Amino acid sequence: MSIRVGIYGYGNLGRGVECAIRQNSDMELACVFTRRDPATLEIKTEGVPVYHIDKAVEMKDKIDVLILCGGSARDLPTQTPEMAKLFNVVDSFDTHAKIPCHMANVDAAAKEGGKVALISVGWDPGMFSINRMYMGAVLPCGKDYTFWGKGVSQGHSDAIRRIEGVKNGKQYTIPVDAALEAVRSGSEPELTTREKHTRLCYVVAEEGADKARIEREIKEMPNYFADYDTTVEFISEEELLRDHSGIPHGGFVIRTGKTGEDLQNTHVIEYSLKLDSNPEFTASVIVAYARAAYKMHLEGQSGCKTVFDVAPAYLSATPREELIKNLL
Amino acid sequence: MSIRVGIYGYGNLGRGVECAIRQNSDMELACVFTRRDPATLEIKTEGVPVYHIDKAVEMKDKIDVLILCGGSARDLPTQTPEMAKLFNVVDSFDTHAKIPCHMANVDAAAKEGGKVALISVGWDPGMFSINRMYMGAVLPCGKDYTFWGKGVSQGHSDAIRRIEGVKNGKQYTIPVDAALEAVRSGSEPELTTREKHTRLCYVVAEEGADKARIEREIKEMPNYFADYDTTVEFISEEELLRDHSGIPHGGFVIRTGKTGEDLQNTHVIEYSLKLDSNPEFTASVIVAYARAAYKMHLEGQSGCKTVFDVAPAYLSATPREELIKNLL
Repeated sequence: MSIRVGIYGYGNLGRGVECAIRQNSDMELACVFTRRDPATLEIKTEGVPVYHIDKAVEMKDKIDVLILCGGSARDLPTQTPEMAKLFNVVDSFDTHAKIPCHMANVDAAAKEGGKVALISVGWDPGMFSINRMYMGAVLPCGKDYTFWGKGVSQGHSDAIRRIEGVKNGKQYTIPVDAALEAVRSGSEPELTTREKHTRLCYVVAEEGADKARIEREIKEMPNYFADYDTTVEFISEEELLRDHSGIPHGGFVIRTGKTGEDLQNTHVIEYSLKLDSNPEFTASVIVAYARAAYKMHLEGQSGCKTVFDVAPAYLSATPREELIKNLL
Repeated sequence: MSIRVGIYGYGNLGRGVECAIRQNSDMELACVFTRRDPATLEIKTEGVPVYHIDKAVEMKDKIDVLILCGGSARDLPTQTPEMAKLFNVVDSFDTHAKIPCHMANVDAAAKEGGKVALISVGWDPGMFSINRMYMGAVLPCGKDYTFWGKGVSQGHSDAIRRIEGVKNGKQYTIPVDAALEAVRSGSEPELTTREKHTRLCYVVAEEGADKARIEREIKEMPNYFADYDTTVEFISEEELLRDHSGIPHGGFVIRTGKTGEDLQNTHVIEYSLKLDSNPEFTASVIVAYARAAYKMHLEGQSGCKTVFDVAPAYLSATPREELIKNLL
């Protein structure tokens, strides 16, 4: 019998989850929940119902895992605890500083419901976090670094678009090659924010707008751009839509460390992602962890878990004996 | 209280484990077991006793985890099951084809003793296996590739040294850059053995030996070299000792996969290691898993486990709350 998965929220991430479920033959999409009028929502999977989120409680026994596809700022802090009382859930809560608080809320709810809740699943937090953890455990005398990009930052793109005279815009975060090389050398450099990443902005200006002012406002924007070497390029709306409509992302986690009697030997561990679609990859990670949540619940576990708490074998649809035979 | 670790077998790996334990403040070396006369063994840690392996049973209650540092061909198939009856154990059994059989033997023994036995720990099998597993679970529609090197292959170096007229020799396995690039492109190429790796041999010939014959014998050696583009370079013994006395190794696990409604998006996940010392890095991985074996045993688990069965958090000395706060 398949694992019945529900999708709660049907934006970029929800659509990615829908696609990912199709790639996993042990899973099926049970239904999609939306805040909109369900009649207005067209989903890609034939024969699967769309319900208003108010109906979720009625689906309690028809869904094995509910995947929460809302945003970390406004949706997940309330949705995940609410839903964890009713379902095994997975979310991609990514406001790093607020994870411990979110965790406490979700843990209480999941324990109340006897369900497993996996939070902060994706690639960062997610696969990058796991790698930081494995690397640090294996090489205690060392230092790790995370670089992001080349990829589109939604938050920074939004910030550009809020500037007066900007019609549209897209921002790429780009890791600095020299910094990557310095890290890989094992020298454990201290790197400033400016040394690690640059920011590249493609901006479509309103007709007659003062481009010099727009460029200055971007480059001087505190938190977002002031601490970085930022490049601003003005392009036409056609160019923006033609060349910059994707949502690529990726990055690097690198740890270097020393071993040996006199710490004479250096080791470099590197994990990297190069993603054509940030939401679709995030969705793929989440769907693998949905399987894990289901298996852990079957074993009688409950409460809030993170990627640190999940043994790798839970993620796979392949029986353990085959994993050991073919992948170990 | 520290985790008391025993070392069983004091070769390159055992010495690496001894160094690695010092980097982990929650662990201490309890003793070293050897097949040799203990009086002849000098270890690096002051005040730690060396015993003959026959004494192991007497240390049953004084060791929390025993790390087996013998070889996969002759030592571990008997040593790991024997010791798993008495101790939580970790080994680095790496004869891939025989892992299921080894696993069955060790599982029966560990369950009999109520102990946790972690087998096939290191980097391949080990960290590479975990990465193959995570990558495959996250991107089911894709293909993964493992490349080894640049690094010293002990087995191939030994094969060279068995040839008549060879005084000494060292073999490096080198991944082919073009193959790596083809894999990273996402084209999922079919690669032959010859296309993936080359082999580079540094050979010290006996005086007056027929170098042309030695070179031919190496290049034509079945299994070891015949399927590869092999380069043979004759050097002096001084050069060999000066430039090739290290045991570096490493490699790459790369998976590319597709997502999206029409599989239009490609993703590349890459994990790589660049190691100055193969045995010391292997030892560092093993020591982290020794911590895991100890924690799992404390929780009441028993039997034979692999890296697939161990949740990442078990490897770390850092409390879960801090891991979540700092690494997630």
